[in-house]
Amino acid sequence: MIKEWVKGKKPDDEVLAARLEKARYELAKRQQMIKEKKLPVLVVLDGWGAAGKGSVLGRIIKNLDPRFFKTFTLTKASEEEKRRPFLYRYFNKIPEAGKIVFFDGSWMDEVTRGYLKGTVKPKEYEKRLESIKRFERQLNDNGYLVVKFFFQIGQEEQRLRLKRLKEDKNTGWRVDKWDEWQNRHYDRCMEVYDKYLDATNQFIAPWYFVDSKNRKWAELQVTELLVQSIDIALKNAGRSVPILQNTFPLVKMPLLSEISLDQKVEDAKYRQELDRLQKRLSELHNEIYHKKIPVIIAYEGWDAAGKGGNIKRLAAALDPRGYEVHPIASPEPHEKSRHYLWRFWTRLPKKGHIAIFDRTWYGRVMVERLEGFCSENDWQRAYTEINEFEKELDDWGAVIVKFWVQIDQDTQLERFTDRQNTPEKQWKITDEDWRNREKWDQYEVAVNEMIQKTSTEFAPWHILESNDKHYARLKALETVIAAIEQRLKK
Amino acid sequence: MIKEWVKGKKPDDEVLAARLEKARYELAKRQQMIKEKKLPVLVVLDGWGAAGKGSVLGRIIKNLDPRFFKTFTLTKASEEEKRRPFLYRYFNKIPEAGKIVFFDGSWMDEVTRGYLKGTVKPKEYEKRLESIKRFERQLNDNGYLVVKFFFQIGQEEQRLRLKRLKEDKNTGWRVDKWDEWQNRHYDRCMEVYDKYLDATNQFIAPWYFVDSKNRKWAELQVTELLVQSIDIALKNAGRSVPILQNTFPLVKMPLLSEISLDQKVEDAKYRQELDRLQKRLSELHNEIYHKKIPVIIAYEGWDAAGKGGNIKRLAAALDPRGYEVHPIASPEPHEKSRHYLWRFWTRLPKKGHIAIFDRTWYGRVMVERLEGFCSENDWQRAYTEINEFEKELDDWGAVIVKFWVQIDQDTQLERFTDRQNTPEKQWKITDEDWRNREKWDQYEVAVNEMIQKTSTEFAPWHILESNDKHYARLKALETVIAAIEQRLKK
Repeated sequence: MIKEWVKGKKPDDEVLAARLEKARYELAKRQQMIKEKKLPVLVVLDGWGAAGKGSVLGRIIKNLDPRFFKTFTLTKASEEEKRRPFLYRYFNKIPEAGKIVFFDGSWMDEVTRGYLKGTVKPKEYEKRLESIKRFERQLNDNGYLVVKFFFQIGQEEQRLRLKRLKEDKNTGWRVDKWDEWQNRHYDRCMEVYDKYLDATNQFIAPWYFVDSKNRKWAELQVTELLVQSIDIALKNAGRSVPILQNTFPLVKMPLLSEISLDQKVEDAKYRQELDRLQKRLSELHNEIYHKKIPVIIAYEGWDAAGKGGNIKRLAAALDPRGYEVHPIASPEPHEKSRHYLWRFWTRLPKKGHIAIFDRTWYGRVMVERLEGFCSENDWQRAYTEINEFEKELDDWGAVIVKFWVQIDQDTQLERFTDRQNTPEKQWKITDEDWRNREKWDQYEVAVNEMIQKTSTEFAPWHILESNDKHYARLKALETVIAAIEQRLKK
Repeated sequence: MIKEWVKGKKPDDEVLAARLEKARYELAKRQQMIKEKKLPVLVVLDGWGAAGKGSVLGRIIKNLDPRFFKTFTLTKASEEEKRRPFLYRYFNKIPEAGKIVFFDGSWMDEVTRGYLKGTVKPKEYEKRLESIKRFERQLNDNGYLVVKFFFQIGQEEQRLRLKRLKEDKNTGWRVDKWDEWQNRHYDRCMEVYDKYLDATNQFIAPWYFVDSKNRKWAELQVTELLVQSIDIALKNAGRSVPILQNTFPLVKMPLLSEISLDQKVEDAKYRQELDRLQKRLSELHNEIYHKKIPVIIAYEGWDAAGKGGNIKRLAAALDPRGYEVHPIASPEPHEKSRHYLWRFWTRLPKKGHIAIFDRTWYGRVMVERLEGFCSENDWQRAYTEINEFEKELDDWGAVIVKFWVQIDQDTQLERFTDRQNTPEKQWKITDEDWRNREKWDQYEVAVNEMIQKTSTEFAPWHILESNDKHYARLKALETVIAAIEQRLKK
């Protein structure tokens, strides 16, 4: 299908030169507008080896202000990157607001190459197509412009170009085995590319098929389409995005008000159980390390609910070389100027490691919602975006455990008062805690909505009843142990 | 992929009964809200023969107010429908604002069945998938809720059900040959369905996979998902929709101000040529009738530009049994309460016929834009929507000719004055014409934007320079003749 989309016909050289000059000028102007309007732009150049992606890119950036764009040539994933979800290295590199990022080769290349070589199996491939569609749509929904070009040349043209490149000592190194494999299996590749382009050709991020036989003509097509795309994106800037239907299977969860909080553990029992569970978790940590299973543990809960102490007891069981605790505060400027999940994507553990998040991406639908740090449209969209994020983690093979640490209002007041009156605990209580406490009811509405909408079958919430902190600590250990054991059984 | 989405597990009978009662009540409440908020809802039930779509639908509508919903059982297209684009009979039946339409079987059934039987070829099939995606997205963008269910049962279960139905005299008639074919070729069908569901599983109109082994459980899934979908759609109501990137190849067109209007034809030449061209068109009309090629001719232009007289000369060449002129005024209430293209879809000619539109769907980006009859978001979106509409016509095999009848302001004033001063022409001039004339400059901006953005390679605009009406009439005839001749050569 996509093959039918070649845009227009190459104009005469004179017309081409004039249009190119104008288009370059217009694009330079657009860079200013992007900067002013804080639009983040991601440009993806994919296509056949030797189709001229690199040289077109080289020409285009000549006219741009280097402070406001970056280019990445995406070859093979590094060892570090291979131990992360496959989108990790791309999510990592998304532009800041007001800047352009050019990818010379993208997730398309990685995924189709793996599929063609048989290292990515058909089922896995289908899953990745879904992931890619979600990724591109999420970027778009969060205000990014994503423009995708596929550079097209015929088999014979590619063969000739590769031959010419090889014969020249200065360019011979640019021809790798993959390019030659591609040329020999041109039809098979085209079939796979065609299906890929079709499958990922979304209304919000369509593919543009670039006739690449002539370098200047290719540059003109890319430049004009970039200008056009930026103009439309600027028109869309700030427009609210329709909320999507939920398509994730949800687990039925209780409301906070329905949760009983009178569980208690005796001291002796607590110490004995804590010891036993920590030993078991320690064993499991070894096992997941060897089996390269990543584990993500997320903590949310009321102030003074006992998150810190709870995490401490969990961490105490773990080998420090294999886990990390990420305390999450408000985002830094460089984090704020990107997709709100960026700072979590970049903090994902390696396979075999454990990441514990002390507060999480759920800030979007709690504090950011209630304090107005994002728009209503933003937090309403976030339930699906977060479910999609966790689906990525699940597809990757991660164990995901999400805790809501629950106490009642009286218990919070007691603990606040105790903190205020105990000199060595005073650092733990701030004016903000008191202010948040006044908004308890609003928070309860938000937390209930969050738990109902994000308890998916692959990443359900677990409630830790924490009026008795000892009870909550044991339950946390038990829950993590059960989740890991279940995964190991698979 | 889609097969992994089965929603949850069937609860115990008691829980199921309680949830079902609640869900039915909630859905009835939603019907009221739909009515109040003027939300149009399109529910599609697809799936295996004997999976129970009909009986679930029967249960669901029992609790609804019959004044505000309709059901259609979509079996084979009628002869009338077969002579129209394949989406015609579905577009025809879309709900009015505030109402629900249920489709028992949809475009999915028609298209996959054709593909399985070999009557829809692979290339055509791919095109139809694109058409379906655009159709569903356009409905969504225009405020429709589209909910799609696929009823799933296994091969053995289907076989048993078909056997049971056949054995009973009262139900035997319900089993048709197709159901049995489907059951015998279950795996092949599943493969095709799976790909179809994947390809058309859009974020804005996802598929829900209904586990249909148990009737009540199937009803519960459908009812709960309907309630959930309606709630989200109500939240989205009135939200502006992001404008899409253009993906259609455009033809470069001049601005109105660049068009020279001093062409002239002498009287004798005019009469001679008119006669010759009308004869030729008349021959061609015969030919397209026999070859079953549909022709769509669209007229837009300034008031008093001479559209009426121009159309008359064209129509004079045609056999009245094979063409229709559609004068387009402002929409009736039942047209206004549907997608703005509905009244044009329903006026499409049969194959082999000619439809002439005196004013068109371009009203959206001219009068509706300038008079505020639609929102800015609506008309900005319309360029792509109209290109997509014309792409449907092109895919269907239609010849599309679009005329902009151009005059200058002085000529218009002359003609207005003449009309005013000539008793038998006075009906042709109204206060509105004078008011429109005052907005000439605004209209010119809109017309220029329209011509630039909707001159696609498959449906370009043609300018009729009409200061000399005779010249314009000959050019119209020539243009139509050339377009038909070109199509006949293919």
